[in-house]
Amino acid sequence: MNTLSSLLDNNQFNLVYNMLSLGIASMLFTTVFLFVARERVAPRYRMAVMVSGTVTAIAAYHYFRMFDSFNHAFAGLEGNNSDAYNVGYRYVDWLLTVPLLLVEIVAVLGLARAIQASLLNRLVPAAAAMILLGYPGDAKLDIFDLAPSIWGALSTIPFLYILYVLFVELGKSLSRQSAPVQKKIKQLRLLLLATWGVYPITFILAMNSTGFNADEVVAREIGYSIADILAKCLFGLIIFSIARIKSAEDDKEFAKSEFRD
Amino acid sequence: MNTLSSLLDNNQFNLVYNMLSLGIASMLFTTVFLFVARERVAPRYRMAVMVSGTVTAIAAYHYFRMFDSFNHAFAGLEGNNSDAYNVGYRYVDWLLTVPLLLVEIVAVLGLARAIQASLLNRLVPAAAAMILLGYPGDAKLDIFDLAPSIWGALSTIPFLYILYVLFVELGKSLSRQSAPVQKKIKQLRLLLLATWGVYPITFILAMNSTGFNADEVVAREIGYSIADILAKCLFGLIIFSIARIKSAEDDKEFAKSEFRD
Repeated sequence: MNTLSSLLDNNQFNLVYNMLSLGIASMLFTTVFLFVARERVAPRYRMAVMVSGTVTAIAAYHYFRMFDSFNHAFAGLEGNNSDAYNVGYRYVDWLLTVPLLLVEIVAVLGLARAIQASLLNRLVPAAAAMILLGYPGDAKLDIFDLAPSIWGALSTIPFLYILYVLFVELGKSLSRQSAPVQKKIKQLRLLLLATWGVYPITFILAMNSTGFNADEVVAREIGYSIADILAKCLFGLIIFSIARIKSAEDDKEFAKSEFRD
Repeated sequence: MNTLSSLLDNNQFNLVYNMLSLGIASMLFTTVFLFVARERVAPRYRMAVMVSGTVTAIAAYHYFRMFDSFNHAFAGLEGNNSDAYNVGYRYVDWLLTVPLLLVEIVAVLGLARAIQASLLNRLVPAAAAMILLGYPGDAKLDIFDLAPSIWGALSTIPFLYILYVLFVELGKSLSRQSAPVQKKIKQLRLLLLATWGVYPITFILAMNSTGFNADEVVAREIGYSIADILAKCLFGLIIFSIARIKSAEDDKEFAKSEFRD
């Protein structure tokens, strides 16, 4: 029966429902924490912490929207309107948050302004291009008659460029950072690679599917939600901890007032 | 069939829906960021940043309203009540925000109070007149029996006056600003010209249309939303960055605590 194929069973529904709710809670309270905790770093690093809080705030808004959209589309047994679940929210979210995540990692290094501007002028447009080129493939929009795989390949070009800038260009500035900061920045880059890597895997798995597949929807929502929580909340908290370490390194008085060692 | 012509298809609906949601997210979180980030500029420039945050806050409210109004008018297959979509929200928004955008650009320059007052006493009434004269034409109200093109022409007079004040009068004060500030102010004026320019183009395109045209509605909503996000969020963030530069120029201690170079 065709209508039944667009339903999730109770377990599937609850799994995604709880995962989206976990997304709301994680994003919302990381935001609150980061905005209040910005005072616990030196003024020079507060912008990085505030941008981290802005990213999780934007994501919290979109998780509220996705949660409502998911409920509307799949709650109730007659729910044969799986079309009504809006995948667009994730892309609108990423369009705003992915460039800002790169702003966070650059801002927390406290680089000279010229170097910082040069890095951001390359990373931010590349991030926006990556998201904009991915969307037509994932949403299977019929633009210029291109297959989803072509959009996926196009979107990979700015992704590789971002990795080049982060691992090679930004790597050059790392030698001037202390050992604990270097270690954290390397963790951040690996976290970014691991969480952003969920996206192409999901993209390729869904690329050739036609129509509605309940398992696929469940796997995609869970995968994206976990990756999002790690890529924004954990990422933002590591940014905060780098900002704390650097604040203490810059100012012995600050170190004494904040830490005992 | 006449009723069908007042519907948007699924892709059209989703495109506008996601664009209005992007508007909400951009306006709301630029507001939060600017209000918190006002501490990162010297007291003298905080008014400019707070006015920028107020502009995006007003716009966030109106995007929530437009999002709901759009859903109410176009969601559902029987939705032949496209008349119910309220274009008035954009005009109410502009009536408040457009004069305030001009307050931002004047306030961030930190001019002598007499010069500032003289600029604002001319820019603010001109901006209000521009919006009030445009509305009867765009909404095709039957006031004094004037054609939409007449209202468009009337609204252009204060627009040209604003450009004169910004490019000629305000240009005179620019010579006393530093090179980086001059560069940013010139970017701001071009951004203002480019984003406000979307409005007359849309106005002229829609001027002679009669009845409902789905493509026209979609193009107008997307055009206005992108222009609005750039004209308010990007504009406000450039104001913030000018305020940061000028704070650092005014006060070496501030510069040292905020930047490393």
